[in-house]
Amino acid sequence: MALIVHKYGGTSMGSTERIRSVAQRVAKWVRAGHQLVVVPSAMSGETNRLLGLAKDLMPDPQLASTPAALRELDALAATGEQVSVGLLALALQAQGVAAVSYGGWQVPIRTDSAFTKARISAIDDTRVRADLAAGKVVIVTGFQGIDPEGNVTTLGRGGSDTSAVAVAAAMKADECLIYTDVDGVYTTDPRIVPEARRLSTISFEEMLEMASLGSKVLQIRSVEFAGKYRVPLRVLSSFTPWDIPIEEEASSGTLITFEEDEKMEQAVVAGIAFNRDEAKISVIGVPDKPGIAFQIIGPVADANIDIDVIIQNVSHSGRTDFSFTVHRNDYARTLEVLKTKVLPATGAAEVLGDAKICKVSIVGIGMRSHVGVASKMFRTLSDEGINIQMITTSEIKTSVVIDEKYMELAVRALHKAFDLDQETAAV
Amino acid sequence: MALIVHKYGGTSMGSTERIRSVAQRVAKWVRAGHQLVVVPSAMSGETNRLLGLAKDLMPDPQLASTPAALRELDALAATGEQVSVGLLALALQAQGVAAVSYGGWQVPIRTDSAFTKARISAIDDTRVRADLAAGKVVIVTGFQGIDPEGNVTTLGRGGSDTSAVAVAAAMKADECLIYTDVDGVYTTDPRIVPEARRLSTISFEEMLEMASLGSKVLQIRSVEFAGKYRVPLRVLSSFTPWDIPIEEEASSGTLITFEEDEKMEQAVVAGIAFNRDEAKISVIGVPDKPGIAFQIIGPVADANIDIDVIIQNVSHSGRTDFSFTVHRNDYARTLEVLKTKVLPATGAAEVLGDAKICKVSIVGIGMRSHVGVASKMFRTLSDEGINIQMITTSEIKTSVVIDEKYMELAVRALHKAFDLDQETAAV
Repeated sequence: MALIVHKYGGTSMGSTERIRSVAQRVAKWVRAGHQLVVVPSAMSGETNRLLGLAKDLMPDPQLASTPAALRELDALAATGEQVSVGLLALALQAQGVAAVSYGGWQVPIRTDSAFTKARISAIDDTRVRADLAAGKVVIVTGFQGIDPEGNVTTLGRGGSDTSAVAVAAAMKADECLIYTDVDGVYTTDPRIVPEARRLSTISFEEMLEMASLGSKVLQIRSVEFAGKYRVPLRVLSSFTPWDIPIEEEASSGTLITFEEDEKMEQAVVAGIAFNRDEAKISVIGVPDKPGIAFQIIGPVADANIDIDVIIQNVSHSGRTDFSFTVHRNDYARTLEVLKTKVLPATGAAEVLGDAKICKVSIVGIGMRSHVGVASKMFRTLSDEGINIQMITTSEIKTSVVIDEKYMELAVRALHKAFDLDQETAAV
Repeated sequence: MALIVHKYGGTSMGSTERIRSVAQRVAKWVRAGHQLVVVPSAMSGETNRLLGLAKDLMPDPQLASTPAALRELDALAATGEQVSVGLLALALQAQGVAAVSYGGWQVPIRTDSAFTKARISAIDDTRVRADLAAGKVVIVTGFQGIDPEGNVTTLGRGGSDTSAVAVAAAMKADECLIYTDVDGVYTTDPRIVPEARRLSTISFEEMLEMASLGSKVLQIRSVEFAGKYRVPLRVLSSFTPWDIPIEEEASSGTLITFEEDEKMEQAVVAGIAFNRDEAKISVIGVPDKPGIAFQIIGPVADANIDIDVIIQNVSHSGRTDFSFTVHRNDYARTLEVLKTKVLPATGAAEVLGDAKICKVSIVGIGMRSHVGVASKMFRTLSDEGINIQMITTSEIKTSVVIDEKYMELAVRALHKAFDLDQETAAV
């Protein structure tokens, strides 16, 4: 008997027919002798429907981003998953499987008070454990929790992955299975590169980079959580028939591993990730003195804007240029913050920005011990006539920012250049 | 400055356009200097949509009435109001009015654990008072609360009225205004009798009878609550333009009063109520001995089935017939309980039932001091050739059970016989 956490995405929960199929799948695991905690997302389209109603009533984005409004938006959006868990519990009961559902506040899943992007601080598993011991499947809302003041919070888009992994970590589950509408992690997006291949395993660190670089299979925070607590995590398809043999299901998809085996080392590059949700901003002519980075980034962070890549090049004549990227949704707000708060305070010359960019990255744990990977990347892009605007690197990835219009071309060229379409390159 | 509770029904909350209009109305009251607590229902159709999804997944009504399933149905249905309160809070904020929403569990509104028909046991108003003192409109979900184990419960259909009155009672509000899709309490349903007139006031006791007898304007438990705590209650239309003068709005509709003034005494009959949601059940040939009523009703009550009228006539030959009515939805379940549990235990001869009945009642506080009201009722029905199957009376009402098909005819005839269409009979 193992303790297993299942997470189902919105598409899997998209209709009562699909919910019934999820219940049959969960029932199969229960009948095989396992204890199950299930974390479903809202029915597909439901969160957008709710936020659409809200937008109708509060068309002004400035008003809608006040703390009072964000609090209401969270309470509103959280009902989507509350509907899902109730329906799934009923579907399981109809299958003859004892089941009970909880909202995040009931578990409770405790978070901080950052509405719409809260972070989980603690999970009390007493109640869930008691139900499991009583032979029940426990269904917990994804995406949400409760803050110290008793307000409902949400974890942001895709937060249900994080909820599932956090529950798995808190309960020391044997495995966390993320059922989704893709059948695993690919070398890159098959919609861009038809030759993309599914990886049967990927290292935690590679997965972290792939997720953070825009691969939408798993939310980045869920991967971080899995890494921190070493939760065995598997991404697999919710579209296989529910009644395939459990052994077959249990070994399908992509397993995120924590051991670097020899086979992994052979693959220099595991995959190509890309992201066109970002915008680039440069603060030009910044006086190069201690504390200047904080003077620029501090006010942006205070406005609760997440920053991705940050680049500061060497200075000349006592001045430097400072560039970073933010989510495209935060682009206008970031420019505003910089112009009103940062320019006057720092004496920088000007602020420039471009929202029509994308980031393309090559990721691979093998890069640590292989030189020349970055240069091969740059040469490939050069051969295609693609200008590189920004570069950042880490131990296991190299990212470039390029004009958005070259994204597909760059991804296809790199996928081919690193032989990712070849079985021999398999991880 | 007064503390006012507003309650808005599902139709008033039926679209974002209507929610905006509710927000404008509430804002008008706030700007007139009042403190406002608002209790909205779910958007019209939403509760049915949610329960429809549930029924899809759990088509077997026997399974769907287990405690485990009822718990899930409550958690599910409660999301309807959780959406409403969030949207209304945003709509108020968009009007420049500070507003905060709470689910029943957050207030908290404490209830017992009778899922789908829970009763409010206590309301903690600390949090709400603090918000009011801080100048905020507080929006609280109707229809729901939290039980001692931390489960979400609902109060049953129409429960939002009860929530509003209970909140008004707990906070000692100056008035509770129930905004609805009718503009007050009528002598009877205008859809059946076009000559029906609106009453500008009605006594609490008459309202209690009207509500319990099927007048759908207010949920019976909300009237009981109002009576117990002497909450001034007004039923008024949510379809008047939101910007009519506040004095005009504050005196519209029907006020439920606690003082019997002279004028009221003049009206013998205030209104005609009717109800076709009931079914009639008789246990025939019951041994007439002490404790027999409990032996019959006990198991029905244990099955959480509400009983309305109960009649036991004088016995002959040591046997009697015992009749009562239940909600039509509980008809089959009640027959089952009686046949499996009551017949064997009591030695009664048989159980008979009829779901095609209706109850018609005349209600009036003046009946206390006027003889001949009941006989006039019976003669009127006799003149129309309508057979009376059961009769019950209280101090201020007389009810008859008749064949469902005669309902409209009976109501129209009685309305005319008691001069309710005449202005002179006005209360």
